[in-house]
Amino acid sequence: MPTQDYQQQIENLIALIARMAGLAEAQLAAASDALQRRDAGLGRRVHGDDRQIDHQETVIEAEATRLLLLQTPSSENLQEILGAIKIAGELERVGDYSANIAKRVVRLASLEGLPRLGTLHRMGRLVQAQLADVINAYAQRDLNKAIDAWERDDELDDLYTSLYREMLTYMMEDPRNITGYTHFLFIAKNFERIGDHATNIAEIIHVLITGRPLEKTRVKADTTPHFLPQE
Amino acid sequence: MPTQDYQQQIENLIALIARMAGLAEAQLAAASDALQRRDAGLGRRVHGDDRQIDHQETVIEAEATRLLLLQTPSSENLQEILGAIKIAGELERVGDYSANIAKRVVRLASLEGLPRLGTLHRMGRLVQAQLADVINAYAQRDLNKAIDAWERDDELDDLYTSLYREMLTYMMEDPRNITGYTHFLFIAKNFERIGDHATNIAEIIHVLITGRPLEKTRVKADTTPHFLPQE
Repeated sequence: MPTQDYQQQIENLIALIARMAGLAEAQLAAASDALQRRDAGLGRRVHGDDRQIDHQETVIEAEATRLLLLQTPSSENLQEILGAIKIAGELERVGDYSANIAKRVVRLASLEGLPRLGTLHRMGRLVQAQLADVINAYAQRDLNKAIDAWERDDELDDLYTSLYREMLTYMMEDPRNITGYTHFLFIAKNFERIGDHATNIAEIIHVLITGRPLEKTRVKADTTPHFLPQE
Repeated sequence: MPTQDYQQQIENLIALIARMAGLAEAQLAAASDALQRRDAGLGRRVHGDDRQIDHQETVIEAEATRLLLLQTPSSENLQEILGAIKIAGELERVGDYSANIAKRVVRLASLEGLPRLGTLHRMGRLVQAQLADVINAYAQRDLNKAIDAWERDDELDDLYTSLYREMLTYMMEDPRNITGYTHFLFIAKNFERIGDHATNIAEIIHVLITGRPLEKTRVKADTTPHFLPQE
């Protein structure tokens, strides 16, 4: 097989990722929208549509496997193929967490007396922008955009921290609504994890463009705060 | 390069996975132990040791990449190499969640008046056994053991469900301790997610042994219950 043809097939693989990314973005946007409007019907639809994203991951893995069996790739093409498999894995997780948010919206829609949480919706918008940016960075091979999105994850973590504190105070003031608040808490956690996956994608892009890993100086583990002094 | 030599290098890659798996198991065991004893010192150690697991993943990925650049692998060897990359990714997540449990133990150790939660420790033991089984199934290429561990994930989900309900009632009865209970809640969630990663490994083993994916009839998404009737 001529190398140029192989190159074209790699381009096709990248296009498959773009399509899967579009699906994941749409699911996250719809889940955030359902949350904002407490729309159980939309929540159910988002939850049901998750299997489409799972299917896309299967398609991408099969295609990547086929390419690896065709010929020994150049180092650059191998990075591209392995990068595609990894990004597909990250997008699948984004889909999972969006579906989980949607499922919780269905539950929340039937609960009364819960406040509107501006910080939570801000988290939703922030993580959507972050995901859109890494997806664009992948398509445009834009290293600065990838690093920028990676650095913005701190902002999301800060929002999560303040939201967590806010939620704990609500729980203490009004224990009857603890069920609702724990759903909010897990939704916030899901947004934060989606942000983690967006930064993982930014790290993969960094390797694709520079050949080197992004220096992980930031602690990526979950940093739920507590009311006691940090040690 | 002679094919037999390549085969040997694949074996070496599998041995690297075994080593990383041993590290992940040790971290999970130590985190569970720290939780049981509310041992902040052990919690700090587990949290700090997570970087060893991260390093192992980097080593395995580099080795897998090297093998893929050496020659076009047979379909079987390719599955083995891609399986190794994926299992390393799953084990890295197990390490992350164990580190997160350990970090929460440090916080919990300084809180007074929290009950001993038998169900939580049972979850810890169950997920340790499940992880050990999939690791053995990988080493011994034991399909039945892998499927068995995969199916046992339901038990873990059930425990999580009852623990979640138990925790909500504690929170409502004693709102002053909500900080502590939310840590317990997230620890339980972490155990449940580790179980998900163990089942992911079981699914990878299924593909390695049979060449086919395990039929995913089980819903893998998070199934936090609520107090309202399910729709």
